[in-house]
Amino acid sequence: MKELEFIKNIRKKSAKPADGLLMGIGDDCAVIEKDKKTFFVWGADMIAEGTHFRIKDGYERIGRKSVAVNISDVAAMGGRPKYITVSIGMPCGMKTADALKIYKGISVIAGEYGVQLAGGDTVRSEKLVIDVSIIGTVLKKDLVKRSGAKEGDLILITGPVRNGRKEHLDFIPRISESGFLVKNYRPGAMIDVSDGIAADMGRICMESGTGCILFEKDIPLSPGLSMEDAMYYGESFELLFTMEKSKADKLISRKKRSGLADFFVIGAVTRSSRGMKIMRSSGRTIDLKMRCYDHFGNNRSG
Amino acid sequence: MKELEFIKNIRKKSAKPADGLLMGIGDDCAVIEKDKKTFFVWGADMIAEGTHFRIKDGYERIGRKSVAVNISDVAAMGGRPKYITVSIGMPCGMKTADALKIYKGISVIAGEYGVQLAGGDTVRSEKLVIDVSIIGTVLKKDLVKRSGAKEGDLILITGPVRNGRKEHLDFIPRISESGFLVKNYRPGAMIDVSDGIAADMGRICMESGTGCILFEKDIPLSPGLSMEDAMYYGESFELLFTMEKSKADKLISRKKRSGLADFFVIGAVTRSSRGMKIMRSSGRTIDLKMRCYDHFGNNRSG
Repeated sequence: MKELEFIKNIRKKSAKPADGLLMGIGDDCAVIEKDKKTFFVWGADMIAEGTHFRIKDGYERIGRKSVAVNISDVAAMGGRPKYITVSIGMPCGMKTADALKIYKGISVIAGEYGVQLAGGDTVRSEKLVIDVSIIGTVLKKDLVKRSGAKEGDLILITGPVRNGRKEHLDFIPRISESGFLVKNYRPGAMIDVSDGIAADMGRICMESGTGCILFEKDIPLSPGLSMEDAMYYGESFELLFTMEKSKADKLISRKKRSGLADFFVIGAVTRSSRGMKIMRSSGRTIDLKMRCYDHFGNNRSG
Repeated sequence: MKELEFIKNIRKKSAKPADGLLMGIGDDCAVIEKDKKTFFVWGADMIAEGTHFRIKDGYERIGRKSVAVNISDVAAMGGRPKYITVSIGMPCGMKTADALKIYKGISVIAGEYGVQLAGGDTVRSEKLVIDVSIIGTVLKKDLVKRSGAKEGDLILITGPVRNGRKEHLDFIPRISESGFLVKNYRPGAMIDVSDGIAADMGRICMESGTGCILFEKDIPLSPGLSMEDAMYYGESFELLFTMEKSKADKLISRKKRSGLADFFVIGAVTRSSRGMKIMRSSGRTIDLKMRCYDHFGNNRSG
């Protein structure tokens, strides 16, 4: 089952958001009216043994990742993470000490990002599975959606793009970068790269009704990361975003501040009829393929 | 691992709720400041194959249950359900048609209760697992907590208590009854019975710092339900609540309205030092045991 098609199907069946729900399916988080100036952004990401981690990765790191991927979703909306619920399906016979290691990993990263554990559930399941639901806040004027890309905007990414195969358990969610961008440069559209630059760029284009062209030579890779993995493996959790050219120029030429990842222009937003393209380093421009790698060698849908 | 002990452990490690979070772990839902008059209540309940359902139960009913248990949590707080996120771990090879049946069950019950699907996640997992996160609203003055029981209050339950073994997939969450109670009779403490009257009464007593005495002869059982199952099996999702005696008298003697479950006095709140007791039908008063049945014959922790 392809996730994009599947979600389209679910979305068609869902009512239009209303009654305090500003945005539902189709972005990193749902958006709920809080008060006059503020939205709540609300997301849920599940990680499952064998798909997103293995037990040998270590319980504390697994717990950390379950929260980090959710914090990353809040970053993609321009928000600040506030509260989480954590639901854990634990295999029969799992030791209490190991379960507490999961919560240790959760509480350490929660502490780092000022996130409070608000509740959740523990149940017995065949394999370890953790679903975290996160609520963040964002000023209404700062909300960034996937649907905000416009023809002529540039496409940027935080980087150098991390190696999802190596860093997927220990990555630092790009909250600082998101806060910096939202405050100073107002991105048009934004997403965090969970499934590879190609698939996540596809989501921005789909929601914005645009096309795109990416320039392979400009995509900044961290040491050891292949272009193939950057495009199709994902789990780098970089912020991929669009911005008017004038703002992007200012961003790139600014005096750099320490403690933030760097920002790189990697393409441009085009009209929808142009489709999604990539100019290879060889100079040849081809269609951007939408295939999605499984992180552990099987088909995956999330 | 005992859930109560485990939660105590997690709770000790968590910071005191603050920063817009009014209540965290320790109730059916967390409570978040929305605006001057309103709280959001926010819960998450996970159901896993083999623990809370079997595939042969039917995908649509499984989807329905995943939402119903969460609506029931909102009812327990005196709230109205509003939005859900749904995260599903699907086994490899699951058919799209079957996945859509799960969403059919979800959207039918969501429609019945005016709940909007706001987002979620689909991932691959070994066995089917569904985690729903729900947000409801409640007027600040109407919020009911587990911690509101007072010595001298009576203990009541909606009923006749449903048979959790038979009805756990198709039960009607007690939203109407909750709304009726909150509006007219203001319960002191409230919980929905997911793990049996004994365990859930234990949660009220723990949070309220009280004891209790239950009268076995007054517990209303639906046909075919054993007292043993009512006390220890759970999955009836009745509302168990406390109320001042004068209000309870009015509630019981009121002119009955159709369409609501009935309300029954089944005990009284005592001081903590009296412990938790049950007067058997034989007239003998004994300690209320806290054991928790597994719904499918194994130890379970949720």
